[in-house]
Amino acid sequence: MPTTDRIWTAALLVIGDEILTGRTHDKNIAQLASWLGVQGIRLKEARVVADDMGAIAAAVNALRTGHDYLFTTGGIGPTHDDITVDAVAEALGVPVVVDPEARAILEEYYATRGGLNDARLRMARVPQGSELIPNRMSGAPGIKTGNVFLLAGVPHIAAQMLDALTGTLEGGAPLLSETIGCWTAESEVADLLRAVEKAHAECQIGSYPFFREGRTGANFVIRSTDPDALASCADSLCGALAEAGKDFTPGGI
Amino acid sequence: MPTTDRIWTAALLVIGDEILTGRTHDKNIAQLASWLGVQGIRLKEARVVADDMGAIAAAVNALRTGHDYLFTTGGIGPTHDDITVDAVAEALGVPVVVDPEARAILEEYYATRGGLNDARLRMARVPQGSELIPNRMSGAPGIKTGNVFLLAGVPHIAAQMLDALTGTLEGGAPLLSETIGCWTAESEVADLLRAVEKAHAECQIGSYPFFREGRTGANFVIRSTDPDALASCADSLCGALAEAGKDFTPGGI
Repeated sequence: MPTTDRIWTAALLVIGDEILTGRTHDKNIAQLASWLGVQGIRLKEARVVADDMGAIAAAVNALRTGHDYLFTTGGIGPTHDDITVDAVAEALGVPVVVDPEARAILEEYYATRGGLNDARLRMARVPQGSELIPNRMSGAPGIKTGNVFLLAGVPHIAAQMLDALTGTLEGGAPLLSETIGCWTAESEVADLLRAVEKAHAECQIGSYPFFREGRTGANFVIRSTDPDALASCADSLCGALAEAGKDFTPGGI
Repeated sequence: MPTTDRIWTAALLVIGDEILTGRTHDKNIAQLASWLGVQGIRLKEARVVADDMGAIAAAVNALRTGHDYLFTTGGIGPTHDDITVDAVAEALGVPVVVDPEARAILEEYYATRGGLNDARLRMARVPQGSELIPNRMSGAPGIKTGNVFLLAGVPHIAAQMLDALTGTLEGGAPLLSETIGCWTAESEVADLLRAVEKAHAECQIGSYPFFREGRTGANFVIRSTDPDALASCADSLCGALAEAGKDFTPGGI
Protein backbone atom coordinates (compact mmCIF):
# COMPACT_ATOMS: atom_id res chain seq x y z
CA MET A 1 0.00 0.00 0.00
CA PRO A 2 1.29 3.48 -0.80
CA THR A 3 2.11 5.31 2.41
CA THR A 4 2.78 8.76 0.99
CA ASP A 5 0.33 11.59 0.34
CA ARG A 6 2.47 12.83 -2.53
CA ILE A 7 0.50 13.01 -5.77
CA TRP A 8 2.33 11.57 -8.75
CA THR A 9 1.45 13.16 -12.05
CA ALA A 10 1.87 12.33 -15.69
CA ALA A 11 1.26 13.97 -19.03
CA LEU A 12 0.59 12.43 -22.43
CA LEU A 13 1.79 13.74 -25.76
CA VAL A 14 -0.13 12.26 -28.69
CA ILE A 15 1.87 12.70 -31.89
CA GLY A 16 0.35 12.50 -35.33
CA ASP A 17 -1.23 14.40 -38.20
CA GLU A 18 -3.87 11.66 -38.39
CA ILE A 19 -5.40 12.76 -35.08
CA LEU A 20 -5.36 16.48 -35.93
CA THR A 21 -6.98 15.96 -39.33
CA GLY A 22 -9.78 13.90 -37.79
CA ARG A 23 -8.83 10.79 -39.78
CA THR A 24 -8.12 8.78 -36.65
CA HIS A 25 -10.00 9.01 -33.34
CA ASP A 26 -7.54 8.99 -30.47
CA LYS A 27 -7.92 6.07 -28.10
CA ASN A 28 -4.67 6.47 -26.22
CA ILE A 29 -5.76 9.28 -23.90
CA ALA A 30 -8.49 7.17 -22.28
CA GLN A 31 -6.34 4.03 -22.37
CA LEU A 32 -3.38 5.69 -20.65
CA ALA A 33 -5.65 7.50 -18.18
CA SER A 34 -7.19 4.22 -17.03
CA TRP A 35 -3.83 2.47 -16.77
CA LEU A 36 -2.26 5.36 -14.85
CA GLY A 37 -5.20 5.35 -12.44
CA VAL A 38 -4.35 1.79 -11.43
CA GLN A 39 -0.69 2.75 -10.94
CA GLY A 40 -1.66 5.57 -8.55
CA ILE A 41 -0.56 8.25 -11.03
CA ARG A 42 -2.78 11.13 -12.20
CA LEU A 43 -2.95 12.10 -15.83
CA LYS A 44 -2.94 15.90 -15.51
CA GLU A 45 -2.65 16.99 -19.11
CA ALA A 46 -2.70 15.61 -22.63
CA ARG A 47 -1.56 17.34 -25.79
CA VAL A 48 -1.87 16.41 -29.43
CA VAL A 49 0.69 17.79 -31.89
CA ALA A 50 1.44 17.19 -35.56
CA ASP A 51 4.37 15.27 -37.05
CA ASP A 52 6.58 18.34 -36.67
CA MET A 53 10.03 18.27 -35.03
CA GLY A 54 9.75 21.69 -33.43
CA ALA A 55 6.23 21.15 -32.10
CA ILE A 56 7.10 17.73 -30.65
CA ALA A 57 10.35 18.88 -29.05
CA ALA A 58 8.75 21.97 -27.49
CA ALA A 59 5.88 19.94 -26.04
CA VAL A 60 8.26 17.26 -24.73
CA ASN A 61 10.28 19.84 -22.83
CA ALA A 62 7.20 21.63 -21.48
CA LEU A 63 5.62 18.39 -20.25
CA ARG A 64 8.57 16.31 -19.00
CA THR A 65 9.65 19.07 -16.63
CA GLY A 66 6.16 19.73 -15.29
CA HIS A 67 5.25 16.15 -14.39
CA ASP A 68 6.76 13.03 -12.85
CA TYR A 69 6.25 11.09 -16.06
CA LEU A 70 5.68 11.93 -19.69
CA PHE A 71 4.28 9.41 -22.14
CA THR A 72 4.23 9.86 -25.89
CA THR A 73 2.23 7.83 -28.41
CA GLY A 74 2.92 7.65 -32.12
CA GLY A 75 5.74 8.30 -34.52
CA ILE A 76 8.09 5.42 -33.61
CA GLY A 77 7.53 3.29 -36.71
CA PRO A 78 9.74 2.70 -39.78
CA THR A 79 8.56 5.42 -42.17
CA HIS A 80 9.69 8.97 -42.94
CA ASP A 81 6.86 10.50 -40.92
CA ASP A 82 8.03 8.69 -37.75
CA ILE A 83 10.16 11.40 -36.15
CA THR A 84 9.41 11.04 -32.44
CA VAL A 85 12.83 9.59 -31.54
CA ASP A 86 14.64 12.43 -33.32
CA ALA A 87 12.40 15.08 -31.76
CA VAL A 88 12.77 13.68 -28.24
CA ALA A 89 16.55 13.45 -28.66
CA GLU A 90 16.57 17.07 -29.81
CA ALA A 91 14.48 18.07 -26.79
CA LEU A 92 16.87 16.25 -24.45
CA GLY A 93 19.98 17.53 -26.23
CA VAL A 94 21.36 14.03 -26.85
CA PRO A 95 22.29 12.23 -30.08
CA VAL A 96 20.26 9.44 -31.65
CA VAL A 97 22.07 6.09 -31.52
CA VAL A 98 21.28 2.56 -32.67
CA ASP A 99 20.55 0.46 -29.58
CA PRO A 100 22.27 -2.95 -29.88
CA GLU A 101 19.56 -4.74 -27.90
CA ALA A 102 16.80 -3.21 -30.03
CA ARG A 103 18.72 -4.17 -33.16
CA ALA A 104 19.00 -7.77 -31.92
CA ILE A 105 15.25 -7.87 -31.14
CA LEU A 106 14.42 -6.59 -34.63
CA GLU A 107 16.88 -8.99 -36.28
CA GLU A 108 15.19 -11.90 -34.57
CA TYR A 109 11.67 -10.61 -35.25
CA TYR A 110 12.31 -9.99 -38.94
CA ALA A 111 14.40 -13.15 -39.49
CA THR A 112 11.26 -14.93 -40.71
CA ARG A 113 9.64 -11.78 -42.11
CA GLY A 114 11.94 -10.68 -44.93
CA GLY A 115 14.97 -9.57 -42.93
CA LEU A 116 16.11 -6.30 -41.35
CA ASN A 117 16.19 -3.53 -43.97
CA ASP A 118 17.09 0.14 -43.43
CA ALA A 119 13.51 1.17 -42.68
CA ARG A 120 13.12 -1.52 -40.03
CA LEU A 121 16.49 -0.61 -38.55
CA ARG A 122 15.10 2.89 -37.92
CA MET A 123 13.08 1.27 -35.13
CA ALA A 124 16.32 0.41 -33.28
CA ARG A 125 17.23 4.12 -33.06
CA VAL A 126 16.88 5.66 -29.58
CA PRO A 127 17.90 8.85 -27.82
CA GLN A 128 21.31 8.08 -26.23
CA GLY A 129 20.90 6.75 -22.69
CA SER A 130 17.55 5.03 -23.22
CA GLU A 131 16.16 1.70 -22.03
CA LEU A 132 13.75 -0.45 -24.02
CA ILE A 133 10.10 -1.24 -23.30
CA PRO A 134 9.20 -4.75 -24.50
CA ASN A 135 6.66 -5.16 -27.30
CA ARG A 136 5.43 -8.74 -27.63
CA MET A 137 3.05 -7.72 -30.39
CA SER A 138 5.17 -6.44 -33.23
CA GLY A 139 8.84 -6.58 -32.31
CA ALA A 140 9.83 -2.92 -32.33
CA PRO A 141 10.25 -1.90 -28.70
CA GLY A 142 9.05 1.20 -26.89
CA ILE A 143 11.66 3.47 -25.35
CA LYS A 144 12.20 4.87 -21.85
CA THR A 145 14.57 7.79 -21.58
CA GLY A 146 14.70 9.52 -18.20
CA ASN A 147 11.07 10.15 -17.24
CA VAL A 148 9.88 10.03 -20.85
CA PHE A 149 8.19 6.88 -22.20
CA LEU A 150 7.81 6.54 -25.96
CA LEU A 151 4.96 4.21 -26.89
CA ALA A 152 3.51 3.07 -30.21
CA GLY A 153 0.56 4.98 -31.64
CA VAL A 154 -1.48 1.89 -32.54
CA PRO A 155 -3.60 1.46 -29.38
CA HIS A 156 -3.28 -2.30 -28.97
CA ILE A 157 0.51 -2.11 -29.32
CA ALA A 158 0.62 0.78 -26.84
CA ALA A 159 -1.46 -1.42 -24.52
CA GLN A 160 1.16 -4.18 -24.70
CA MET A 161 3.88 -1.72 -23.79
CA LEU A 162 1.86 -0.40 -20.85
CA ASP A 163 1.34 -3.98 -19.76
CA ALA A 164 5.12 -4.43 -19.71
CA LEU A 165 5.44 -1.29 -17.55
CA THR A 166 2.74 -2.30 -15.06
CA GLY A 167 4.00 -2.12 -11.49
CA THR A 168 7.36 -0.60 -12.46
CA LEU A 169 6.49 3.07 -11.89
CA GLU A 170 6.28 4.68 -8.48
CA GLY A 171 2.86 6.12 -7.72
CA GLY A 172 0.75 7.26 -4.81
CA ALA A 173 -2.70 6.43 -3.56
CA PRO A 174 -5.00 5.56 -6.47
CA LEU A 175 -7.85 7.96 -7.14
CA LEU A 176 -11.05 6.11 -6.26
CA SER A 177 -14.46 6.95 -7.63
CA GLU A 178 -18.11 6.30 -6.98
CA THR A 179 -20.84 7.09 -9.51
CA ILE A 180 -24.45 7.94 -8.72
CA GLY A 181 -26.86 8.24 -11.63
CA CYS A 182 -30.03 10.30 -11.52
CA TRP A 183 -32.87 11.04 -13.95
CA THR A 184 -32.78 14.78 -13.44
CA ALA A 185 -31.58 17.87 -15.23
CA GLU A 186 -28.29 18.63 -13.50
CA SER A 187 -29.46 22.24 -13.18
CA GLU A 188 -32.17 21.06 -10.73
CA VAL A 189 -29.61 19.66 -8.29
CA ALA A 190 -26.67 22.00 -8.84
CA ASP A 191 -27.03 23.63 -5.41
CA LEU A 192 -27.03 20.36 -3.51
CA LEU A 193 -24.06 19.04 -5.51
CA ARG A 194 -22.10 22.14 -4.62
CA ALA A 195 -23.09 21.90 -0.94
CA VAL A 196 -22.19 18.20 -0.68
CA GLU A 197 -18.83 18.76 -2.34
CA LYS A 198 -18.08 21.69 -0.04
CA ALA A 199 -18.87 19.56 3.04
CA HIS A 200 -16.41 16.86 1.90
CA ALA A 201 -13.10 18.62 1.36
CA GLU A 202 -11.28 15.44 0.33
CA CYS A 203 -13.68 14.72 -2.53
CA GLN A 204 -14.44 16.25 -5.91
CA ILE A 205 -17.79 15.74 -7.61
CA GLY A 206 -18.13 15.84 -11.39
CA SER A 207 -21.54 16.16 -13.01
CA TYR A 208 -21.99 14.58 -16.46
CA PRO A 209 -25.37 15.17 -18.10
CA PHE A 210 -26.84 12.98 -20.81
CA PHE A 211 -29.95 12.71 -22.96
CA ARG A 212 -31.25 9.20 -23.57
CA GLU A 213 -34.57 7.94 -24.87
CA GLY A 214 -35.90 11.48 -24.74
CA ARG A 215 -35.07 11.89 -21.06
CA THR A 216 -32.56 14.09 -19.28
CA GLY A 217 -30.25 12.56 -16.71
CA ALA A 218 -26.83 12.95 -15.18
CA ASN A 219 -24.14 10.84 -13.59
CA PHE A 220 -22.42 12.32 -10.58
CA VAL A 221 -18.89 11.00 -10.14
CA ILE A 222 -17.28 11.43 -6.72
CA ARG A 223 -13.48 11.11 -6.69
CA SER A 224 -11.14 10.80 -3.72
CA THR A 225 -8.02 8.93 -2.64
CA ASP A 226 -9.63 8.27 0.76
CA PRO A 227 -12.12 5.38 0.73
CA ASP A 228 -13.86 6.52 3.93
CA ALA A 229 -14.26 10.08 2.68
CA LEU A 230 -15.58 8.71 -0.60
CA ALA A 231 -18.18 6.53 1.12
CA SER A 232 -19.26 9.36 3.40
CA CYS A 233 -19.61 11.76 0.46
CA ALA A 234 -21.61 9.20 -1.51
CA ASP A 235 -23.95 8.72 1.48
CA SER A 236 -24.43 12.47 1.81
CA LEU A 237 -25.16 12.86 -1.90
CA CYS A 238 -27.69 10.01 -1.91
CA GLY A 239 -29.35 11.54 1.18
CA ALA A 240 -29.54 14.96 -0.42
CA LEU A 241 -30.95 13.56 -3.68
CA ALA A 242 -33.59 11.59 -1.73
CA GLU A 243 -34.51 14.70 0.24
CA ALA A 244 -34.94 16.58 -3.06
CA GLY A 245 -37.35 13.86 -4.20
CA LYS A 246 -35.04 12.48 -6.89
CA ASP A 247 -34.69 8.85 -7.91
CA PHE A 248 -31.09 7.85 -8.07
CA THR A 249 -29.07 4.77 -9.00
CA PRO A 250 -25.84 3.96 -7.13
CA GLY A 251 -23.30 2.78 -9.66
CA GLY A 252 -24.58 5.18 -12.28
CA ILE A 253 -27.02 5.03 -15.15
CA MET B 1 -12.75 30.21 -53.44
CA PRO B 2 -9.97 31.26 -51.08
CA THR B 3 -7.36 33.23 -52.97
CA THR B 4 -4.72 33.52 -50.28
CA ASP B 5 -1.89 31.11 -49.48
CA ARG B 6 -2.03 32.10 -45.82
CA ILE B 7 -2.58 29.08 -43.59
CA TRP B 8 -5.21 29.64 -40.91
CA THR B 9 -4.66 27.66 -37.75
CA ALA B 10 -6.70 26.68 -34.74
CA ALA B 11 -6.16 24.96 -31.43
CA LEU B 12 -8.59 23.03 -29.27
CA LEU B 13 -8.67 22.99 -25.50
CA VAL B 14 -10.69 20.07 -24.12
CA ILE B 15 -11.66 20.78 -20.52
CA GLY B 16 -12.71 18.10 -18.07
CA ASP B 17 -11.63 15.64 -15.40
CA GLU B 18 -13.77 13.00 -17.10
CA ILE B 19 -11.41 12.86 -20.09
CA LEU B 20 -8.24 12.73 -17.96
CA THR B 21 -9.55 9.96 -15.71
CA GLY B 22 -10.48 7.83 -18.74
CA ARG B 23 -14.18 7.86 -17.83
CA THR B 24 -15.16 9.58 -21.06
CA HIS B 25 -13.55 9.06 -24.46
CA ASP B 26 -13.05 12.39 -26.17
CA LYS B 27 -14.92 12.78 -29.44
CA ASN B 28 -14.49 16.51 -29.88
CA ILE B 29 -10.91 16.47 -31.22
CA ALA B 30 -11.89 14.44 -34.29
CA GLN B 31 -15.20 16.27 -34.67
CA LEU B 32 -13.61 19.72 -34.58
CA ALA B 33 -10.72 18.60 -36.82
CA SER B 34 -13.13 17.45 -39.52
CA TRP B 35 -15.24 20.59 -39.28
CA LEU B 36 -12.19 22.88 -39.38
CA GLY B 37 -10.90 21.04 -42.45
CA VAL B 38 -14.02 22.04 -44.35
CA GLN B 39 -13.60 25.67 -43.23
CA GLY B 40 -10.02 25.75 -44.59
CA ILE B 41 -8.54 25.98 -41.10
CA ARG B 42 -5.88 23.60 -39.75
CA LEU B 43 -6.14 22.14 -36.28
CA LYS B 44 -2.50 22.45 -35.18
CA GLU B 45 -2.72 21.43 -31.54
CA ALA B 46 -5.14 20.04 -29.00
CA ARG B 47 -4.76 20.00 -25.24
CA VAL B 48 -6.77 18.35 -22.52
CA VAL B 49 -6.73 19.89 -19.03
CA ALA B 50 -8.61 19.21 -15.81
CA ASP B 51 -11.39 21.32 -14.23
CA ASP B 52 -8.79 23.62 -12.73
CA MET B 53 -8.91 27.43 -13.06
CA GLY B 54 -5.15 27.89 -13.29
CA ALA B 55 -4.62 25.09 -15.79
CA ILE B 56 -7.46 26.29 -18.03
CA ALA B 57 -6.43 29.96 -17.93
CA ALA B 58 -2.77 29.16 -18.68
CA ALA B 59 -3.69 26.94 -21.63
CA VAL B 60 -6.16 29.52 -22.98
CA ASN B 61 -3.49 32.20 -23.03
CA ALA B 62 -0.86 29.90 -24.55
CA LEU B 63 -3.19 28.76 -27.33
CA ARG B 64 -5.21 31.87 -28.21
CA THR B 65 -2.06 33.85 -28.92
CA GLY B 66 -0.42 31.12 -30.98
CA HIS B 67 -3.30 30.46 -33.37
CA ASP B 68 -5.94 32.31 -35.36
CA TYR B 69 -8.71 30.58 -33.45
CA LEU B 70 -9.03 28.76 -30.17
CA PHE B 71 -11.94 26.45 -29.41
CA THR B 72 -12.74 25.05 -26.00
CA THR B 73 -15.10 22.19 -25.21
CA GLY B 74 -16.59 21.45 -21.81
CA GLY B 75 -17.28 23.23 -18.55
CA ILE B 76 -20.04 25.63 -19.65
CA GLY B 77 -22.95 23.88 -17.89
CA PRO B 78 -24.88 24.81 -14.73
CA THR B 79 -22.93 22.95 -12.03
CA HIS B 80 -20.08 23.87 -9.68
CA ASP B 81 -17.52 22.02 -11.82
CA ASP B 82 -18.35 24.20 -14.85
CA ILE B 83 -15.68 26.87 -14.56
CA THR B 84 -14.67 27.51 -18.16
CA VAL B 85 -16.30 30.97 -18.37
CA ASP B 86 -14.55 32.11 -15.19
CA ALA B 87 -11.20 30.70 -16.31
CA VAL B 88 -11.40 32.28 -19.77
CA ALA B 89 -12.41 35.64 -18.25
CA GLU B 90 -9.43 35.38 -15.91
CA ALA B 91 -7.15 34.58 -18.85
CA LEU B 92 -8.47 37.59 -20.77
CA GLY B 93 -8.40 39.89 -17.75
CA VAL B 94 -12.08 40.81 -18.03
CA PRO B 95 -14.97 40.41 -15.57
CA VAL B 96 -17.74 37.83 -15.91
CA VAL B 97 -21.11 39.43 -16.65
CA VAL B 98 -24.64 38.13 -17.20
CA ASP B 99 -25.45 38.50 -20.89
CA PRO B 100 -29.00 39.85 -21.32
CA GLU B 101 -29.56 37.99 -24.59
CA ALA B 102 -28.37 34.71 -23.08
CA ARG B 103 -30.61 35.31 -20.09
CA ALA B 104 -33.59 35.87 -22.40
CA ILE B 105 -32.80 32.68 -24.33
CA LEU B 106 -32.62 30.66 -21.11
CA GLU B 107 -35.81 32.25 -19.72
CA GLU B 108 -37.67 31.20 -22.83
CA TYR B 109 -36.10 27.73 -22.94
CA TYR B 110 -36.84 26.98 -19.29
CA ALA B 111 -40.31 28.63 -19.27
CA THR B 112 -41.83 25.19 -19.90
CA ARG B 113 -39.09 23.29 -18.03
CA GLY B 114 -39.38 24.43 -14.43
CA GLY B 115 -38.19 28.02 -14.77
CA LEU B 116 -34.85 29.78 -14.58
CA ASN B 117 -33.12 29.00 -11.27
CA ASP B 118 -29.71 30.21 -10.07
CA ALA B 119 -27.89 27.20 -11.53
CA ARG B 120 -29.47 27.69 -14.95
CA LEU B 121 -28.71 31.41 -14.80
CA ARG B 122 -25.02 30.49 -14.53
CA MET B 123 -25.25 29.54 -18.21
CA ALA B 124 -25.98 33.21 -19.08
CA ARG B 125 -22.63 34.29 -17.63
CA VAL B 126 -20.00 35.30 -20.19
CA PRO B 127 -16.62 37.03 -20.23
CA GLN B 128 -17.40 40.74 -20.77
CA GLY B 129 -17.39 41.61 -24.47
CA SER B 130 -18.62 38.23 -25.75
CA GLU B 131 -21.07 37.25 -28.45
CA LEU B 132 -23.31 34.18 -28.30
CA ILE B 133 -23.19 31.00 -30.41
CA PRO B 134 -26.69 29.60 -30.96
CA ASN B 135 -27.57 26.20 -29.50
CA ARG B 136 -30.80 24.79 -30.93
CA MET B 137 -30.35 21.60 -28.94
CA SER B 138 -30.47 22.58 -25.28
CA GLY B 139 -30.91 26.34 -24.94
CA ALA B 140 -27.66 27.38 -23.26
CA PRO B 141 -25.59 29.15 -25.91
CA GLY B 142 -21.92 28.82 -26.72
CA ILE B 143 -19.76 31.90 -26.39
CA LYS B 144 -17.41 33.74 -28.74
CA THR B 145 -15.00 36.17 -27.15
CA GLY B 146 -12.30 37.58 -29.40
CA ASN B 147 -10.80 34.60 -31.20
CA VAL B 148 -11.89 32.16 -28.49
CA PHE B 149 -14.96 29.96 -29.02
CA LEU B 150 -16.46 28.22 -25.97
CA LEU B 151 -18.43 25.13 -26.96
CA ALA B 152 -20.34 22.52 -24.97
CA GLY B 153 -18.54 19.31 -23.98
CA VAL B 154 -21.36 16.97 -25.01
CA PRO B 155 -20.35 16.15 -28.60
CA HIS B 156 -23.76 16.44 -30.23
CA ILE B 157 -24.34 19.85 -28.63
CA ALA B 158 -20.87 20.97 -29.69
CA ALA B 159 -21.79 19.80 -33.20
CA GLN B 160 -24.87 22.06 -33.20
CA MET B 161 -22.75 25.02 -32.19
CA LEU B 162 -20.21 24.28 -34.93
CA ASP B 163 -23.08 24.04 -37.37
CA ALA B 164 -24.12 27.56 -36.33
CA LEU B 165 -20.57 28.78 -36.96
CA THR B 166 -20.24 27.15 -40.39
CA GLY B 167 -19.10 29.64 -43.01
CA THR B 168 -18.58 32.48 -40.52
CA LEU B 169 -14.84 32.01 -39.94
CA GLU B 170 -12.18 33.12 -42.38
CA GLY B 171 -10.02 30.28 -43.63
CA GLY B 172 -7.65 29.45 -46.44
CA ALA B 173 -7.44 26.66 -48.95
CA PRO B 174 -8.81 23.42 -47.49
CA LEU B 175 -6.33 20.62 -46.95
CA LEU B 176 -7.22 17.90 -49.43
CA SER B 177 -6.31 14.26 -49.04
CA GLU B 178 -6.08 11.08 -51.06
CA THR B 179 -5.71 7.66 -49.46
CA ILE B 180 -4.05 4.63 -51.02
CA GLY B 181 -4.32 1.33 -49.17
CA CYS B 182 -1.83 -1.49 -49.55
CA TRP B 183 -1.47 -5.00 -48.10
CA THR B 184 2.15 -4.58 -47.13
CA ALA B 185 4.25 -3.99 -44.05
CA GLU B 186 4.96 -0.26 -44.21
CA SER B 187 8.63 -1.08 -43.58
CA GLU B 188 8.78 -2.76 -47.02
CA VAL B 189 7.86 0.45 -48.81
CA ALA B 190 9.36 3.08 -46.49
CA ASP B 191 12.06 4.07 -49.01
CA LEU B 192 9.63 4.64 -51.85
CA LEU B 193 7.26 6.60 -49.62
CA ARG B 194 10.09 8.88 -48.62
CA ALA B 195 11.23 9.30 -52.24
CA VAL B 196 7.73 10.08 -53.51
CA GLU B 197 7.14 12.63 -50.75
CA LYS B 198 10.50 14.27 -51.44
CA ALA B 199 9.65 14.57 -55.14
CA HIS B 200 6.35 16.35 -54.35
CA ALA B 201 7.23 19.29 -52.15
CA GLU B 202 3.64 20.48 -51.82
CA CYS B 203 2.45 17.16 -50.38
CA GLN B 204 2.89 15.29 -47.12
CA ILE B 205 2.42 11.53 -46.94
CA GLY B 206 1.35 9.84 -43.73
CA SER B 207 1.70 6.08 -43.32
CA TYR B 208 -0.81 4.32 -41.05
CA PRO B 209 -0.24 0.61 -40.52
CA PHE B 210 -2.93 -1.83 -39.45
CA PHE B 211 -3.38 -5.51 -38.69
CA ARG B 212 -6.63 -7.08 -39.86
CA GLU B 213 -7.70 -10.66 -40.28
CA GLY B 214 -4.16 -11.74 -39.53
CA ARG B 215 -2.68 -9.61 -42.32
CA THR B 216 -0.44 -6.55 -42.23
CA GLY B 217 -1.40 -3.51 -44.27
CA ALA B 218 -1.11 0.24 -44.34
CA ASN B 219 -3.00 3.23 -45.61
CA PHE B 220 -0.92 6.01 -47.13
CA VAL B 221 -2.61 9.40 -46.83
CA ILE B 222 -1.36 12.16 -49.13
CA ARG B 223 -2.29 15.69 -48.03
CA SER B 224 -2.01 18.95 -49.94
CA THR B 225 -3.92 22.16 -50.56
CA ASP B 226 -3.14 21.88 -54.29
CA PRO B 227 -5.42 19.43 -56.13
CA ASP B 228 -3.02 19.04 -59.07
CA ALA B 229 -0.05 18.35 -56.82
CA LEU B 230 -2.17 15.87 -54.89
CA ALA B 231 -3.20 14.00 -58.05
CA SER B 232 0.36 13.95 -59.35
CA CYS B 233 1.69 12.64 -56.03
CA ALA B 234 -1.00 9.95 -55.89
CA ASP B 235 -0.07 8.87 -59.44
CA SER B 236 3.60 8.68 -58.51
CA LEU B 237 2.87 6.67 -55.39
CA CYS B 238 0.65 4.20 -57.26
CA GLY B 239 3.34 3.85 -59.92
CA ALA B 240 6.04 3.22 -57.34
CA LEU B 241 3.91 0.66 -55.49
CA ALA B 242 3.14 -1.16 -58.77
CA GLU B 243 6.84 -1.18 -59.66
CA ALA B 244 7.58 -2.72 -56.23
CA GLY B 245 5.09 -5.47 -57.02
CA LYS B 246 2.54 -4.34 -54.41
CA ASP B 247 -1.22 -4.58 -54.75
CA PHE B 248 -2.79 -1.29 -53.78
CA THR B 249 -6.29 0.10 -53.47
CA PRO B 250 -6.98 3.75 -54.34
CA GLY B 251 -9.36 5.14 -51.72
CA GLY B 252 -7.75 3.10 -48.97
CA ILE B 253 -8.41 -0.22 -47.30
